[in-house]
Parts: sequence; C-alpha cells; structure tokens
Amino acid sequence: MTTPLPQDFQTAALQAGIKPSGKTDLSAVLSGTPCAWAFAGTRSAAAAASVRRARQLYAAGLPLRAIVVNAGNANAATGAGGVTDDLELSTLTADTFQLSPDSVLTASTGVIGHRLPMEKVRAGVRRLADGLQTAADPHAQAIMTTDTRPKLLARELSGGARLVGVAKGSGMIHPDMATMFSFVYSDAAVDQLALRAAFPGIVARTFNAVTVDGDTSTNDMTAVLCNGQAGAADTAEFLAVLEDLMRELAREIARDGEGASTLLTVRVTGALSADDAQLAARTCAGSALLKSAVHGRDPNWGRVIAALGRSGARLNLDNLRVEVQGVPVFHAGPLDYDAAAVSAAMNAEEVVFGIDLAAGSERGEAWGCDLSAEYVRINAEYTT
Amino acid sequence: MTTPLPQDFQTAALQAGIKPSGKTDLSAVLSGTPCAWAFAGTRSAAAAASVRRARQLYAAGLPLRAIVVNAGNANAATGAGGVTDDLELSTLTADTFQLSPDSVLTASTGVIGHRLPMEKVRAGVRRLADGLQTAADPHAQAIMTTDTRPKLLARELSGGARLVGVAKGSGMIHPDMATMFSFVYSDAAVDQLALRAAFPGIVARTFNAVTVDGDTSTNDMTAVLCNGQAGAADTAEFLAVLEDLMRELAREIARDGEGASTLLTVRVTGALSADDAQLAARTCAGSALLKSAVHGRDPNWGRVIAALGRSGARLNLDNLRVEVQGVPVFHAGPLDYDAAAVSAAMNAEEVVFGIDLAAGSERGEAWGCDLSAEYVRINAEYTT
Repeated sequence: MTTPLPQDFQTAALQAGIKPSGKTDLSAVLSGTPCAWAFAGTRSAAAAASVRRARQLYAAGLPLRAIVVNAGNANAATGAGGVTDDLELSTLTADTFQLSPDSVLTASTGVIGHRLPMEKVRAGVRRLADGLQTAADPHAQAIMTTDTRPKLLARELSGGARLVGVAKGSGMIHPDMATMFSFVYSDAAVDQLALRAAFPGIVARTFNAVTVDGDTSTNDMTAVLCNGQAGAADTAEFLAVLEDLMRELAREIARDGEGASTLLTVRVTGALSADDAQLAARTCAGSALLKSAVHGRDPNWGRVIAALGRSGARLNLDNLRVEVQGVPVFHAGPLDYDAAAVSAAMNAEEVVFGIDLAAGSERGEAWGCDLSAEYVRINAEYTT
Repeated sequence: MTTPLPQDFQTAALQAGIKPSGKTDLSAVLSGTPCAWAFAGTRSAAAAASVRRARQLYAAGLPLRAIVVNAGNANAATGAGGVTDDLELSTLTADTFQLSPDSVLTASTGVIGHRLPMEKVRAGVRRLADGLQTAADPHAQAIMTTDTRPKLLARELSGGARLVGVAKGSGMIHPDMATMFSFVYSDAAVDQLALRAAFPGIVARTFNAVTVDGDTSTNDMTAVLCNGQAGAADTAEFLAVLEDLMRELAREIARDGEGASTLLTVRVTGALSADDAQLAARTCAGSALLKSAVHGRDPNWGRVIAALGRSGARLNLDNLRVEVQGVPVFHAGPLDYDAAAVSAAMNAEEVVFGIDLAAGSERGEAWGCDLSAEYVRINAEYTT
C-alpha cells in the first residue's frame, strides 16, 4: 500500500551517494502548478544555508514549484562555500525541471560541518527527472537520517482535497543528524495570506511542542505547499485538518525519539496564557529527570513540580493538580494513591501527565519520549 | 585530617532518623557572634518553604547566628503544613541555642512532597546542643544526599581571616534529592552591603554556571556568613577569595554529577556581553548531545555549534573559533585536525571546550559533566 500525493504533485527519490550507507538520500517533490506556501525554520543563530535561503524566498512571497531535499549532509557550519553549494542545489534542480530557481525550496539534513559532495549531488539531481511518480512513500523514506521508520500521513477534506505530510527527525544523532523536517503537500486552494497568518501558531502547537533532547538543530524546517488543483477549501477546515496532521506527525517524531520506547505526553490546563501552557508542557516533556522516571515507570510527580517551578509559567501552588495516566497524585499537596497500580498503568506506549496550573483557563500540550540508556549509547559510542 | 571552622563557629551533626539509611541527616552551624550574611536561592516558582523563609529573613536584613540543615527530606510541595514545619524547625533550633528565630536560617534537601517527620526532627534538634565542636567535616558530611563524597574547602586571607565552604548536590536524584547547597563561613569582618551587592554576580559566575541535568531544584540555596572575629578584611580580597572558593566548590559539584566520570568545562571568550558569555557556556555545558560526546571522547564540535546556535548568545559565525583540549577544530568553518589524537586527549578527568564567539570581548565559564548510561540507571531504575 502506497500513499498517493495530492493531485498534480510528483516525486522522485534516489541514491546520490551522499549517505555512506547507500540508502536513498536525494528527493524532490514537484508541483505541475505554482503553490501558495507557508514556512517555519529553526530559530538557531547558526541556521544552515538552506534555512537562511528559505527565509529569503519566503519574504519575497513568490509561489513555489518544487522542494529538493538531501539527507546525509546538513550543509551547516560550512561557511560561504556552503551557501554557494546550497544555491547551486537550487539552480540544478530548477534546470532539471525547467523552473525558476526562486520557486525551488532546498532542505538539507545530516552531518554538520562537512561540505556537500557536489559531484555526487550534481549527478543525482540530473537523474531526478527520470524517476518522477505519484506515490509519496519514496520521498518519506529518502528524507530519513536515523529515524527507525518513515513518517507519512494523509488527510482528506470534506470537499475532496487532500493533504499528504511527511516528517523526519529523532533527535540529533551522531554525527549530528541535525534536523526535524516536515513537509505537507495539498491540492486544496488556500489563501496564502490566511495560511501564513495561521502557520506560526500551528507550528508552535505542533512541531515546536516536540522535544527529544532539547537540542534545537541548525536545519529544522517545516513547510506546507498548496497547488489548488482540487479547488477552493474552507479555510477554517483546512487549517484545522493541517494542524491535526502536523500534530500527529509531531507525535510520531517524539515516539521515534532516539532510544525511546514510550511517548511522553504532557497536557496542561488552567494556564494564565497560552504561552504559559506551552512553556509548562514543554519544560516537563523535556526534563531529563521526568523522562528518566517515565523510562522507569515511576509516577514521580515531584519531578513535575520541579520542572513546573523552573519553567517560568505562572503557577497557583495552592490549587495545582497533577495526574498520571488519569490518576490524581497531587492537589495542593501530595495525595494518597496506589503507586504500584499507577506504575503498572505507565507500562504503556504512551504516558500522559495531566497538569492543572490553577492560574487561568488556557491549555497546551507537548510531547517527548523517555530517556533510556540507549540514548546515551547512540550519542556517545561513536568514536571519530 | 579535619578542617577547622573559622573562629567562633561551631557545628554539630547527628542521625535524626530522617534518612532511612541511618546516615547523619541533621546539622547546625552556630556562630558565637552575629554574622553579616548574603544569600541566593532557587528561582523556581515552586521554591520550598525554607527558601521562601530565607528570602524574608534576607529582606529584613537582621544578622544571622545559625544555620540548621536537614537532609533526606526537601520539605517542598508540602503545602501550608510544610511552611509550619519549617517555622518550627527554626524556633526549635533557636530554643536549643538560645537565639532569636529570626537569626536562624533553615535549609532542607531530600525527597519532594513528603512532610518532615517532625517527631524525629524535634528530638534531633534538641540533641544538637550536646555535640558542638569545631571541625567542619561532620557538617559537610551531614548535608549530603546522593553525593558520592563530601565537598569541603578552606581559604585564608592575607590578614589571617579564613573562609570555610561546604557544598552538596549531584543532580536531582530519585526520589528527587532536589538541591544544590553551598554555605561559606568566615571570621572576616566584611561590610554587609558590599557583600550583598557583589554576591549575585559571584553566584552567577559560580553556582549558577553549573549544570548537571538542567533541572533547577526547588531547594537550591547558597549563603555566606561572616562573624568578624578575625577583624576587618580587605573587601576586594575577600570577594575574590570567596569567588575562587565558590568556583572550586561548584566545579566539585559538576565533577560529582550523577553517573559522571568527567568534568566538562566550557570557556567562552569574545562575547558581546557577560550575559551572552554565560548563556553560551551554560548552554554548551548542559547540552545532552555534547555531554554524550564527552562521555564517548568524541571531539564533536558540530554539537558545540548547534548548542551555541540555540543559546541566544550573539555569534559571529564568520570568525567563530572552537578548541577541544586546546586543539583548534573550527574557525569560521571546519579545520583539519587529528581526530584520534584529540579523542585521546579527551580521555582525561577534565575536558575543556574553548569557544571564541568573535562578537566582543566578554568572557564566561560553565561546568557540567558527561552524560552516561549510569545517569539514566540512577534516575530510572527506582520503582515506587
């Protein structure tokens, strides 16, 4: 079973030889018609050449026709030469598909600090035109670095338009596979201004609510492309379905975190502001101590209180509540609960901490994963 | 060999039965004369009762006569009852030594979310008066929770006055041994206003530059007490020696981090501001990926760039430099270096990353430790 791309999108994926493993590492998605698009990139001050170029394209506001993605090399911390390489990747792709370079988004993931092997990249990009087809699966596969599985989801709107999203990322694995990507393709016709206005909020509630190890990468990028071939969509419905799709992809990334066996979900209610809710949820989901406790199936709510305390979110400790897998464990003070039963309930694929900050009425959610000895092994045992 | 406290300080330490292990868990330090003092506590919004009380005492500006510290129970997240217990700890101690309660600083460390066993505490505090003596060692021992060794250092000023400092903390170990403490006792006479003005900066450059796992505790506290018995000290000399002492204690805490085998030192130069320097150094020292790389003896400078990028510090990537154990590995782009030799040089008790942000002339330093599978074991394997 493969998942077809929305109407008038095609993709090609191949082995350009960038990855030493010989797996597919170069992929493009092409739309037959110009796309309205929205984008968000890493906030890192050491953002890769591709992210900096994407910001310029985004500001220019011209429609996109294609995305080209390489895995195996992040082209980050590569200086002025890296900027030239990234520009050449866009012009090569534009030549191959007879497009304007300004309509081609580039994205790179992989090792930091090594120049792209441009001979291999050039040969690979030329071959992209030969393999165009409509199943999204090879694209989802080709953008992977150390993910254990591809992440590909599809949704359909009531009017028949479709959204197909891919994502990758499982932490920054050695040698610095430094990226979380998500690209969503749709044949809905969507107003670009409305899409761009809503996109930062959607990203904040989805991909920016995922933490594997707290290490923001130099290459993180998410984009949505809409070519309009299925006709106009209801904007509110489109945005709701887009957020749902991106939330599920974000959860897939957390679930596939390095060395992870458990999805850690933190649901915050009663926050004084939406920012407070996100801050509280993300701080808990990223706490090394809470992640270790989840790994050990330990309903250790003291670590939740400690994480909330340092989060910066406003708390009302006199009425604050914490639940683990639905069982109340703290309300203004410790509650009596059956620790063995809660520990047994934590022996699940997903562990949910529910927190009521008792300070307001806003809510937020964040996702992470357990911290295992396997994480350390993955990130320490390589020797250069 | 024991280390004597400065003139006119005495201490007692005993087993009150708060720790199930039966180790010493209650300790007081008493000065025969009133002390000028300075203090800094956790910024956690869920600060423990002892920290909140210390802030009130500090604001009142009255001199201190004693510190009483219990280990084994943090008295944090214990609600209104915990506040009452903390107040009783101060009055019991004041009664025992015939002091005003407002001259007694309380400090608690240990499990979060459990009320203090007050019967045991009351009996213990009454017995403190019987065991007063002048060696600081039993006090350093009694404030430990999961530290593998006591942390006790002494310094002497040119005029003969002494400073004796103790510290504890090795991360927040299960079940939430939630505290970094440092107390420094001196017989120098120091102007309290000058001391209090300088103290926040000293704490920022020493204890706030240590990170074991990023989990700020509910009980962190540091204080310096000066009883003046050795006469007036030169303020500048006193502050310099105090900072040196606190820096070494901070490094001892990082070195004894949970599961740690290596001290990770990050030295930043060329920052646009002192805050930027601290931010850059701390973010690197706290990066799970860099800590894992140190554990694996991997000179993985890509992780330094990634951490700097997300730190918020202003960088000049066009001239930024990174050194590992003194060997240049990055300057505006990757440098050629002997990776095997650098990896071998990292096989040391202390691994130093030197970073020149090339953005200004400020400098800063931070300390952490390697991240080992042992950290995860310590924090995950306990089952409630």
